Formats: sequence, C-alpha cells, structure tokens
Amino acid sequence: VIAVDWGSTSLRAFRLDARGRVVETRRSAQGIIACDGRFGETLAGLLQGWDEPLVVMAGMIGSRQGWREIPYVPCPAGLPELAAAMQEIPDALAGRRVWLAAGQSVQRADGEHDVMRGEETQVCGLLPALPAGPQVVCMAGTHCKHVRIVDGRVVDFSTLMTGELFQLLCQHSLLGRLMQPGAPDADAFAQGLERAGRDPHWLQQLFTVRSRGLFAQLRPDQLASYLSGLLIGHELAALPAAAEVQLVASEALAPLYTAALQRLGRRVRLHGETVTALGLHALATQRGLLAA
Amino acid sequence: VIAVDWGSTSLRAFRLDARGRVVETRRSAQGIIACDGRFGETLAGLLQGWDEPLVVMAGMIGSRQGWREIPYVPCPAGLPELAAAMQEIPDALAGRRVWLAAGQSVQRADGEHDVMRGEETQVCGLLPALPAGPQVVCMAGTHCKHVRIVDGRVVDFSTLMTGELFQLLCQHSLLGRLMQPGAPDADAFAQGLERAGRDPHWLQQLFTVRSRGLFAQLRPDQLASYLSGLLIGHELAALPAAAEVQLVASEALAPLYTAALQRLGRRVRLHGETVTALGLHALATQRGLLAA
Repeated sequence: VIAVDWGSTSLRAFRLDARGRVVETRRSAQGIIACDGRFGETLAGLLQGWDEPLVVMAGMIGSRQGWREIPYVPCPAGLPELAAAMQEIPDALAGRRVWLAAGQSVQRADGEHDVMRGEETQVCGLLPALPAGPQVVCMAGTHCKHVRIVDGRVVDFSTLMTGELFQLLCQHSLLGRLMQPGAPDADAFAQGLERAGRDPHWLQQLFTVRSRGLFAQLRPDQLASYLSGLLIGHELAALPAAAEVQLVASEALAPLYTAALQRLGRRVRLHGETVTALGLHALATQRGLLAA
Repeated sequence: VIAVDWGSTSLRAFRLDARGRVVETRRSAQGIIACDGRFGETLAGLLQGWDEPLVVMAGMIGSRQGWREIPYVPCPAGLPELAAAMQEIPDALAGRRVWLAAGQSVQRADGEHDVMRGEETQVCGLLPALPAGPQVVCMAGTHCKHVRIVDGRVVDFSTLMTGELFQLLCQHSLLGRLMQPGAPDADAFAQGLERAGRDPHWLQQLFTVRSRGLFAQLRPDQLASYLSGLLIGHELAALPAAAEVQLVASEALAPLYTAALQRLGRRVRLHGETVTALGLHALATQRGLLAA
C-alpha cells in the first residue's frame, strides 16, 4: 500500500510494507494549492516506478479545494467511524485504486465548531502507542491541534494558529524589523515562556519583542526565539490537563514544545511524524482494503 | 506656527492661529519610509505658500530612522519635561526655524520597557481638556497606546498592536481567505467582543473566525468585524481602571472603541485627532518659541 499525506503546501508519499512500516518516502512541493487541480497527473508522476495497486490519502486533498470533498465525521469518532467514512475516487489513476480519508469536526462545550483534515489520521496512527485511559494530544505545526481522546475516540479538539501567527509576525509585522536570523536560542525562548505565563495581556506582551530589542535586553538574533516562547506559552496554557501529554511534532518543533511542556510541569511523550503513514495503514486495514 | 505630524507612513501639516486652532491642513503620503531621507525637500514642498517662520514636528520624524534622533524622555513626564527635551534642527529649511518634539519612554511595574513617538504630543494636547484627577487614555490605531496620567504627567503606558495584527490577519492569514468586503457589522463586532470576554484562550478564539465562516454562523462580509471585536475585546481587557476613559480615535475607529468600552461598562469621552496640533502648539508655547 502507498500512503499519501497531501496538504495545502506539501505532498509526501510513503511506500509501506505489510505491517505499515515506511520502506521508502518521496516528497514534492506540489501541495494542493501549487498543483492547481492537476491531481491525477501530479500523483501519477510522484508514484512512478512504485507498483503497489492501493493508494490511501489524507489531508486537504479531501477538502472542497482538493480532489474530492469527503464530509467531516463528527466527534466522538475513532478508527471505525473514520474508516467507514472513507471514499474511493473511481478511475483516479490507471491500474490503481485510490481512497481518501475523511476529516473530523466537533462542536465543543464552549459552543464553537472546529474541523481538522489530516490530524484525525495521525490520531489513528497514534492510538496503538497510547497508554490506557483518557489522553491529551498536542500536535504542533502551522495550525496546532489540541485533541482529547477517550476510549480510542476523539471526543474534543481545538485549533490554535500558533505557527501561522509566528510566521506572519516575523515576516510582515513591525516586530520582524529588528530581527536577525540566528540559531534557536533556548534562553530567549524560556524568557518568552516566562513572560507569557506572568499575565494574560498578550497583545501588550507581543510589543515587548520590539521593546526588548530596542533596549538591548535581547540581541536581534534572539528575538524570534523570544516571540516563539511567548506564542507557545500562550498556546500551551490552553492545553487540557492530563497525566502525560502525547506530543506529535517535527524535528524542528519537538525540542521547543518538549522544553515548554516540561517547564510547565507536564510529562511528555514524543511521537514522530510517521504517525500519518501508520494512521493511513490502520484506516485501510480497518476498511478491509488490505485483506483483498 | 505650523504643526507637523510626520509618521512612518503619513505626513500632515497644520497651519495654526495664535490660539492653536487649525486654520488649514495639508496631507501627503510621504511618510518617513516613503520619502527616503529627503526630509528637507519633502517638507519645503508641502509647506510652499505658507509663510509662518516656525515649524514644530512630532512623530517618527524624531526617531533613528527620521531626520534627527531626539532622545526619549522617561516617565513620569508632562508638558514641562517634554518641552525642555525639544530640539531645533539648525538650517533645516531656508527662512524657517524647525523644531522636533521628543518621544517618551517608560519602565513599567512589570519590568518591561515601552516607547512612544507622537502620542506623547497628543497627550500634551489633551491635558487642558481633561477633568481633574488621575486619567486613563486609550489611543486607538495601528499600535494602540494605553496611557495613565497623574497630575498632568504621564506615569505609565503600554503599546498594544491591535490594528497591525488586524491588518495582518485579514491580509495574510488563512482567516482572511473566507472574508469578503462589507460595511462594519455591529452584530458581528459584538459577537467578537463577547467571545473575547468569555475565556482567555485567544489563540483558540482566533480560529473561530474561520470556523464560524465555515459553519455559516457568520457571513463572509461579517468575518472582519467579528475579528475586530475579538481583538479590541482583548485589547480593552488590559486597559487600567478609571472613572472615565479618555478615547483618542479616528472617525473610523471611534464608534468601534466607544461601543466596546460601553459594553464593558466603561464611561467614555471622545477626543478628536486635532489633539496632535494642539499638543505641538502647547509644546511650542511652553518652550517659549511663540513668545519670540
């Protein structure tokens, strides 16, 4: 089976063995925005030379802007409900069967709706690795997700745009003007976390990125790390309580989130980004596509 | 006397009568960024035909990126301290004397530094209109200022980047993608204020701009007003307590801030943007430049 993670700005294909382990990986910058509707062509090109007849996909490729819109499955939902909601795209690729995973939606206790596409599949890949009992998952990224799991089903989640806001403020705001590139700075990051925890006035705190630069309390190459600490500090203040936080993060973000969670006194278990491939394998198995 | 308000992105000149009232106004898009160092040339062009020999200026023109850097005056400071810190630029314009106002700095009780350039002059213009006793001033804009005044002196202030963040999120973020232009929507704005007041999880709340659009709880043309309510709600949660809030706001922002403050149970007195010209007149008088 071939597992495909196709988001707005990136495309990754994983060739899996019978147990769902990644044998080979291919990457492309042809996210659904860049490939501009030529989904079949793009995918056929990426998979050339791989002869597995089954392709399962997750991410924004299943959204209205993607190849085919697959409805959201409302919470609570786990592997059985998500597998049942998968859909095949008939005649998508010559000689292969192509399936799409569903997204997930929730109406939270605070009345707000929220949605995800791709992260529900990562949760499916995570489930076998989780300890017994209710769990809290923190998925770091452009749009972070905080997910609560009870008895193998997602019961609640929320989206926090930490990563996107960080990029916006660095690239387009007055705060970015004093910044200079530099290696991640653990001390400046910790200062940001500490500042975020001291009072709730975040709009006022954002401007301290500039004032700490102007008053030479931080060097220009430390300012981005300080801002990162501020934002991640505020994000994690909203994370539900749990005995241990299940963290899904890239190699770049994992040390930041681990440090931040530990500073807040939380126990952390880190899971790699292979959870997407594992999740697609679990969905395909549950749906009976691998038995064929 | 001619009063000039010269910021990063705009330039305004006011011709004042002997009592400091604006007789004539000229505007230009030649902010200090656009005019690229040609300060004398730009100003001479704007003032052509006005023959007053004295020009007093405030704003980013007195910053490191401006014509000449005038040091910040630390808090507490009022009209006497700010007037004493003004500096003349010798030989700036043929046949005229050109003076620059100082900026103001503070180290707050929370240990953070903050700065302003231009708003300290607006405070000088506001002072004669203020009731007796300690005052809180809310200055709306790209970078809002919350200012505390005791006995005619600024004792404390902070910068909140509400306006810049609103623009960034509308123009560059995922939240902007669902937005369509529309008239300010009082109901959507009130919903944003209400949402902001319900819990402190602002990063999670930002994403509700998207989810309320996706789930058709708000129309595309209402989303910007909802976001505005969210951000202004968080900004005003940080405003110090006071019997009455002194609001300085443009015609566009005044109704929003007035509605938001009243909703929070605060009494509001609105001051127009002519406070800049009044402040420059007061500074010039205090410095003895008008007696000459």
